[in-house]
Amino acid sequence: KKITVIAGDGIGLEVTGITQNILEIIGERFGHQFEFTPALIGHAAIEATGEPCPQKTIDTCRATDAVLLGAVGMPMYDNNPNLKVRPEQGLLKIRKELGLYSNIRPIKLFDELLYTSSIKPEILQGSDIIFFRELTGGIYFGTPRERNEDGTEAIDTLRYSKMEVERIARQAFESAMTRRKKLCSVDKANVLESSRLWRETVQALSSEYPEVEVTHMFIDNAAMQLIRDPKQFDVIVTGNMFGDILTDEASQIAGSMGMLPSASVGNEIGLYEPIHGSAPDIAGKGIANPIASVLSGALLLDISFGLKEESDAIIGAVAQFLKEGYRTLDIATDETPEDKRMNTAQTG
Amino acid sequence: KKITVIAGDGIGLEVTGITQNILEIIGERFGHQFEFTPALIGHAAIEATGEPCPQKTIDTCRATDAVLLGAVGMPMYDNNPNLKVRPEQGLLKIRKELGLYSNIRPIKLFDELLYTSSIKPEILQGSDIIFFRELTGGIYFGTPRERNEDGTEAIDTLRYSKMEVERIARQAFESAMTRRKKLCSVDKANVLESSRLWRETVQALSSEYPEVEVTHMFIDNAAMQLIRDPKQFDVIVTGNMFGDILTDEASQIAGSMGMLPSASVGNEIGLYEPIHGSAPDIAGKGIANPIASVLSGALLLDISFGLKEESDAIIGAVAQFLKEGYRTLDIATDETPEDKRMNTAQTG
Ligand SMILES: CC(C)[C@H](C(=O)O)[C@@H](O)C(=O)O
Ligand SMILES: CC(C)[C@H](C(=O)O)[C@@H](O)C(=O)O
Repeated sequence: KKITVIAGDGIGLEVTGITQNILEIIGERFGHQFEFTPALIGHAAIEATGEPCPQKTIDTCRATDAVLLGAVGMPMYDNNPNLKVRPEQGLLKIRKELGLYSNIRPIKLFDELLYTSSIKPEILQGSDIIFFRELTGGIYFGTPRERNEDGTEAIDTLRYSKMEVERIARQAFESAMTRRKKLCSVDKANVLESSRLWRETVQALSSEYPEVEVTHMFIDNAAMQLIRDPKQFDVIVTGNMFGDILTDEASQIAGSMGMLPSASVGNEIGLYEPIHGSAPDIAGKGIANPIASVLSGALLLDISFGLKEESDAIIGAVAQFLKEGYRTLDIATDETPEDKRMNTAQTG
Repeated sequence: KKITVIAGDGIGLEVTGITQNILEIIGERFGHQFEFTPALIGHAAIEATGEPCPQKTIDTCRATDAVLLGAVGMPMYDNNPNLKVRPEQGLLKIRKELGLYSNIRPIKLFDELLYTSSIKPEILQGSDIIFFRELTGGIYFGTPRERNEDGTEAIDTLRYSKMEVERIARQAFESAMTRRKKLCSVDKANVLESSRLWRETVQALSSEYPEVEVTHMFIDNAAMQLIRDPKQFDVIVTGNMFGDILTDEASQIAGSMGMLPSASVGNEIGLYEPIHGSAPDIAGKGIANPIASVLSGALLLDISFGLKEESDAIIGAVAQFLKEGYRTLDIATDETPEDKRMNTAQTG
C-alpha cells in the first residue's frame, strides 16, 4: 500500500513525521508493507517550485492509495496583499483536483480530557458529533472573486448547485443511519439564496431516509448551540465556510484543536489531515500535539484501506498514552507533572 | 423624546412591551417625557400590509428620535422556498434604509450568572468584549443573489468596499481607545478576496491609532478562541456574516442569548434590538427573557439620548433583579427556587 505524505508548512512536518513512524510500526506489527512518498504543498512548495501545489504533487497522490497531509499556511502571506501566490491556494487546489468534496470531521472527546476543555465536563460528557463539511464548493471556489479596477472594492461568490449539496448530504444521511439517526443541516436560509437551495435539497433527500430525524439550524444559532449543549447533535452537514467555522469551534468539545483529525473523500483517493493549521508560532519547538495527525492516520487505515483493527490499535494507543498522563502543552493542566509534559520532538 | 417601537414577531411583542414599561417608569422618575409610536416589521407587517417593512415604518422611524425593535422571523417561511416575501427582508431593509452600518454588541457577564453558562466560570470571569459588526454590507446585501433559470444552482455575493470597512473599523478603533486599547479584526483573508481588502483597510487605518494594539484573526480560529479564552479579547471588528455568527456564539459568555442587547447606528437615527431571534416556540408563553430588550433600552437612552444616569439605572435594576435571585428559564439553574422562576407575562 502506498501513501503520499505531504507535510506542508509549520508544524505539519513534525506531526506527519510522527504519524508516519506510527504507521510504520503498525505495518510491522500487523504484517503490512506501507510505502511512503513525500510531496510538496503550501509555502514549502512555493519555495521549491514557485507553485503552492505543483502538478507533480497531484500526480504523486494519484499514483498512491491514500494521502496524509500536515498543515498549510504561513503568516508572512496573510498581511501582504502583494503576494499573489499563497500557500492556501495549494490546499484548495489539491482538494478540488482530487474531487475531495466531503470533509468528515468526527468530534470525539477522550475521557481523559474531560476536564481539559473550557467547557464544563457535565456539558461535554457523552457528546459525539460527526461533521460533514462540503469541501470543493461554496464561497471557497465561486467566481468571480476579485478586486475592482482601482482596488477599492472586492467580491467573492458563494455558489452551490443541487448536485453539490445532494452528494454531501447523502453521505451525511448514510452516516446518520449507522449512528443515532439524527441529522442537523446548518445554513443561513433566512438570508442567503444558496442556503435556501441547500435546505430544499437536504429536505428533498430526507424522503429517502425516513428513519433519520432531520433538523435545520441557522449558522448563528448552531454556533451557539454547539457549546450550549453539544449532546443534542449527532451528524451535522453544512457548507464549506460554515463547516470551517463550526469544526474549529467544536474542537473545544474535544479539549483542543490538537486532537481533531479529518478525512476528505470524494471520487477517487482519500486525503487525511488534522483540522488544525500550521501553527508557525510553535513550529520546530517540539511542542506540537501530534494526536490530530496520528488520528488522521487511523482514519486513513480505516476508510482508505479498510484496516479497522489496525486503525483501532492506533486509537487505543492514543487513549493509553493519555491514560498514562502524557500531555502536550495544549492539553496539559496544572495537575500534569513535569515528567509527563511531552516534548514531541523526542518522541519519534 | 420620541421612540418608535417595532415589536416584530414571536417574543418581540412581549419583550418590547416590558422595555417600554420600564422606559416609562424611568421617564417618570427622572422627569422625561418619552412618546412611543408603534410600527410594523417582519411577519406581523406582511400579515397587515403584504410587505415585510412598509414605507410607513421607515417614515415613522425618521419622525422619531430612536427605534426600539423586538425580533423578526417565523419558521413557516424558512422551509418554504415558494414564499418570496419573508420577514427577514424587513429587518435587512430597515437596517439599509436607515444606514445602520454599525451594529454594536457588548458581551458582558453579570456576576450573578457566572455559573449559568456552559463555559467554566474561571474561563469567563472578567471577560468583557465589545463587537462591532458591519451591518449593511457583505454577503447580506451583495448582488447578484439568485437562482439560475432551472433552479439547480444559486449564488450569493460577498462584496465589501474600502469605505464600508473603514467606517466600521474607525468606530471600533475609537471604542478601543476608550477601553483596553486592543482591537482584533476577524476575517478569512487566507481564502477570501474581500477579507484581504478588509484586512488591508483595517491595517492601514491602524496608523491613525498607534496606541491601539491590532491583531488579525481568521474566523475559524476566532470561533475557537472566543470560548477557549474570551479574556484575550477587548474590541472585535468584523463583517456582517462573521459578526452574526460570533456574537450568537459569544452569548454563551454572558450566560444566555436572552441577555444580550445591541445598538445599530450609522448616519441618522439609532436602532436598538436584542441579538436573539423571535423564538416562536416560546412566544406568548410568558417565559421569554426580557433582559436583552431591556438592556437595549438602556443602550438607547445612553447612545441616542445621552442619558447616562438613566441608562445606568436600568442596568442597575437588572443587576438587582438578578441578585435577588429572579430568573427566567434560560438562566435558571437547579438551585433557582420555584418562586423566583419568572413568568414574564406577569411582570409588566
Ligand atoms: C487553511 C485553510 C484554507 C483551511 C480552510 O479554511 O479550509 C483550514 O482552515 C481548514 O479548515 O482546513
Ligand atoms: C434574523 C437575521 C436576519 C438576523 C441577522 O442575521 O442579521 C439576526 O440573526 C441578527 O443577528 O440580527
